[in-house]
Amino acid sequence: MCNQNGFTLWFTGLSGAGKSTISEIVSEELRRRGLLVEVLDGDVVRTHLSKGLGFSKEDRDTNIRRIGWVCEILSRNGVAAIGAAISPYREIRDEIRGRIERFVEVYVECSIEKLTERDVKGLYQKALNGEIKHFTGVSDPYEPPLTPEVICHTDGRETPEQSAAKVLAKLEAMQYIPAT
Amino acid sequence: MCNQNGFTLWFTGLSGAGKSTISEIVSEELRRRGLLVEVLDGDVVRTHLSKGLGFSKEDRDTNIRRIGWVCEILSRNGVAAIGAAISPYREIRDEIRGRIERFVEVYVECSIEKLTERDVKGLYQKALNGEIKHFTGVSDPYEPPLTPEVICHTDGRETPEQSAAKVLAKLEAMQYIPAT
Repeated sequence: MCNQNGFTLWFTGLSGAGKSTISEIVSEELRRRGLLVEVLDGDVVRTHLSKGLGFSKEDRDTNIRRIGWVCEILSRNGVAAIGAAISPYREIRDEIRGRIERFVEVYVECSIEKLTERDVKGLYQKALNGEIKHFTGVSDPYEPPLTPEVICHTDGRETPEQSAAKVLAKLEAMQYIPAT
Repeated sequence: MCNQNGFTLWFTGLSGAGKSTISEIVSEELRRRGLLVEVLDGDVVRTHLSKGLGFSKEDRDTNIRRIGWVCEILSRNGVAAIGAAISPYREIRDEIRGRIERFVEVYVECSIEKLTERDVKGLYQKALNGEIKHFTGVSDPYEPPLTPEVICHTDGRETPEQSAAKVLAKLEAMQYIPAT
């Protein structure tokens, strides 16, 4: 029997904005506090649940719905489920929000200019050169959340630790995790 | 924080053999005993995780691997995960067994003759007439488990309640659930 109340923490934002980095820090801290945590990273999930899907709107939607469905099952069984995927379309994110009782959306916000400047994996340059098609933010749309529970500014204004602290503070304020 | 130890209960067998019926009785009893339970029914999962997949060996394997992956995540987070899908191929079932620490395989055994005789949904007759292709047991292989933890005989020798009781007794004997 379990007395943890599950919830879903949903990170959305452009490639390279810091979703995985922040979600890792948050998940470690949640585990340190004794919670059951499962991170569903967009790239990892693509290998397990969505092999064969591409990057058309339809395939992206399917992939995000699948992550959402697994988050939903985990949440209702007491787990802190963390989704970290670009999830560019507002409608699909809101659809998932509507299905999950305790849903916290974190917008990891960084400008295209800053991301192109950093370009850790060289993907933005390739997208700008047309070598990668359907690249979110360059040649494919990204619809930012209108009322996310948390916004993390990862353009240099906040360190990943500061962003993670904002997320944890919000979870405490919503009483989804006990205050320290 | 959770003090339930998760496990996966995997029902395999032909269409109409009674996997869903027995797994429903078992899951209700587990919930009654206070456990967290999630049933992953093959048909339901196809709509959420495997839309677009067909019934070729490759597609069946992919579908079963996805159910297995969700069972794995649930199990390691303290949930009693119940998979109920034909899962005709031994190799894939054993692959899933190898990934999950506490895995209990239930072979729901009923002869083709008996299933054709009952044929509740009329599927066997259609398969025998060639109207449904790739129908497990008729025009597609089914590989029974060699050493399942439980065998339920649903050809009339056992009622669904008796089959469920065998499964529960095995879970108690393995100390995956407390004895009543």
